Amino acid sequence: MKFSSKVKKSGLSPMRKFHPYAVAAQAAGKTIYHLNIGQPDVETPPQFFEAVRGFSQSVLAYAPSPGMPVLIDAIQRYYDNLGMHFETGEIQVTTGGSEALQIVFNCILDDGDEVLIPEPFYPNYNTMVNVTGARICPIPTTPEEGYHYADREKIVSRINERTRAIVCTNPGNPTGTILTEDEMRMIVDIAKEHDLFLVADEAYREFVYGGEALQSFGAYEDAADNIIVIDTVSKRFSACGARIGCIISRNRELMGESMKFLQARLSVATLDQIASAALYDVGPEYFAAVREEYKRRRDTVVSKLAEIPGVVCKCPGGAFYIMAKLPIDNADKFQQWLLEEFDDNGDTVMFAPGAPMYATPGKGVDEIRIAYVLKQEKLERAMDLLALGIKKYNETH
Amino acid sequence: MKFSSKVKKSGLSPMRKFHPYAVAAQAAGKTIYHLNIGQPDVETPPQFFEAVRGFSQSVLAYAPSPGMPVLIDAIQRYYDNLGMHFETGEIQVTTGGSEALQIVFNCILDDGDEVLIPEPFYPNYNTMVNVTGARICPIPTTPEEGYHYADREKIVSRINERTRAIVCTNPGNPTGTILTEDEMRMIVDIAKEHDLFLVADEAYREFVYGGEALQSFGAYEDAADNIIVIDTVSKRFSACGARIGCIISRNRELMGESMKFLQARLSVATLDQIASAALYDVGPEYFAAVREEYKRRRDTVVSKLAEIPGVVCKCPGGAFYIMAKLPIDNADKFQQWLLEEFDDNGDTVMFAPGAPMYATPGKGVDEIRIAYVLKQEKLERAMDLLALGIKKYNETH
Repeated sequence: MKFSSKVKKSGLSPMRKFHPYAVAAQAAGKTIYHLNIGQPDVETPPQFFEAVRGFSQSVLAYAPSPGMPVLIDAIQRYYDNLGMHFETGEIQVTTGGSEALQIVFNCILDDGDEVLIPEPFYPNYNTMVNVTGARICPIPTTPEEGYHYADREKIVSRINERTRAIVCTNPGNPTGTILTEDEMRMIVDIAKEHDLFLVADEAYREFVYGGEALQSFGAYEDAADNIIVIDTVSKRFSACGARIGCIISRNRELMGESMKFLQARLSVATLDQIASAALYDVGPEYFAAVREEYKRRRDTVVSKLAEIPGVVCKCPGGAFYIMAKLPIDNADKFQQWLLEEFDDNGDTVMFAPGAPMYATPGKGVDEIRIAYVLKQEKLERAMDLLALGIKKYNETH
Repeated sequence: MKFSSKVKKSGLSPMRKFHPYAVAAQAAGKTIYHLNIGQPDVETPPQFFEAVRGFSQSVLAYAPSPGMPVLIDAIQRYYDNLGMHFETGEIQVTTGGSEALQIVFNCILDDGDEVLIPEPFYPNYNTMVNVTGARICPIPTTPEEGYHYADREKIVSRINERTRAIVCTNPGNPTGTILTEDEMRMIVDIAKEHDLFLVADEAYREFVYGGEALQSFGAYEDAADNIIVIDTVSKRFSACGARIGCIISRNRELMGESMKFLQARLSVATLDQIASAALYDVGPEYFAAVREEYKRRRDTVVSKLAEIPGVVCKCPGGAFYIMAKLPIDNADKFQQWLLEEFDDNGDTVMFAPGAPMYATPGKGVDEIRIAYVLKQEKLERAMDLLALGIKKYNETH
């Protein structure tokens, strides 16, 4: 049987590639410290579960295709509090940020089109773009410059007649880099000048550690037609399993087109929408505590990395990831060796190898993404295992 | 800004087209009897809500991409009870049957490919196929023959080198037609002979009224590579708002390809998976009662239609829809007139016009789909309104 060219171009998740080796290592009695996945360990606010327990309809019916008013209103109030207003018709609820991205790409990308994305990037963008027939044109960065991509010349020189959009993941996954206000303004201006969509994936908005106000490209009302914000409750409220996200845009034509896809898949899970609306009642003390906790973890990882000779890494401003260049030949080989050959008192460590986060062949082979989703003590141990692993690996390779 | 050719080819849901007129009619004080949407009024079994209330994890985490073992096991047991076995790797959980269809089409359809679908068909297939770049090649039917499509010559004569799959919605939406065992065998054989996928959308499996055993194309193990079953809890358990469906296939290569899309969208809502697993504990008395209720409604609609002069309609064997040809010029115009000009003691009625369920231009303009999702008394009133409406409409047009 023949399969589509688009699925053939796509691959399995690089995050899951080492799963079989991890299973084997665990079966052999090893304890694995997981720095490889972006599943936060922070508790989901109880408001979610209270709302679920209070649900009392007798028929679990389809919700409206663009989302339930109770959730749209909650999202609208959240943005009003950030100082930017969206009409209810400018917010569409999706099954996670993932579906929001997929629907937006299907609306704006055709076969042969190009979309500019700074690399390294979230690897699932590959599948999401492949399925439209378009391709990712990477904006190159370097670990030495802290994966900085917001450079006018770097971006503009890659725009051609097939370029349809720029994707900014801000704060960045996998890099943790955040944009300054001047950089955001500059990117918005480029989108306007070149008639491009600016897809702003802002899943990690709350995770910024420099005391800055929360950012969103949604604030740039002068580029109403260009800007599409992708949002989700997954990281904000540690509610990844709710699968609740949204598309936000003042481009009413876009919202009209995306409605076709929203209707074709009928609706988003009713209970999760109601419970996610309740999450927006969480107070600022929740975010302050979470931010404090992650900031401490980031500082731990950065200082532990600084102690390892040959590591290249700048302190990132946001998200809960750090991308680093290691003094090793190949992160894939190193990961496999850590699982198969290495242990320290029965312990070993996992991270996400960097190469699959690049579109440019050969790049990122000595880079890794660290997700700091472990509590302080475990995180320190994991970083010590990484340091020890690098030392031993280089003694034997 | 430019939008993709694929979204431009797609349309908004024809089911929602008359929503503004319905809002206006209600604002004018009319009561509308809704025969237009497939939202059952049957109560969702309490097992769903009990499971939800019992949920006690502190972090609402991502579920595994192909689905949670508790739900996959429940689906596996359900099929074992129907006399057909699937390994756990042959069942993948999706966000409703809608996502299952979308993922399967993305796996098997390329630009320029064709997929055979009997018309009239579920209109959302249009958007789902458009987005892959393929096109629907309709298998024609007639109301006079009860929308019968299972004819070898009719199907085989439409297969060419671009044909990739046959889609069978069985029991049918919008027609309610069901296949005999001989017809199923014949269609399976065609798929095998011509190396086609057979996508069996079996959302309405439990809704058959002739006392027959439950059918599934999944029973044809000799066509393991060809058959892909689309399943959902939406209608089976009146749990449309859970958005839980699945892809079932013994074609392991297909399941490997679809895994790429499953991973790219991370997971399906955790709580809904757990609660949907509990739905499978519902006993046979639940289905017997639901079937009895719908059978009575179907018989009511069929006998009421038989009393209207000029209506063409055969008694369908399943689902909760009846497609009928009316003695009117245009179902769209008739629906608008029913909402704007007609009432009987303040009451009027809505159905789904037939034309958008056809791929062939001009077909179905005098046909409608009736969803019998109202309780007996309301259903009788709705059908009387339809009869009266036809009479009055034809007196004035």
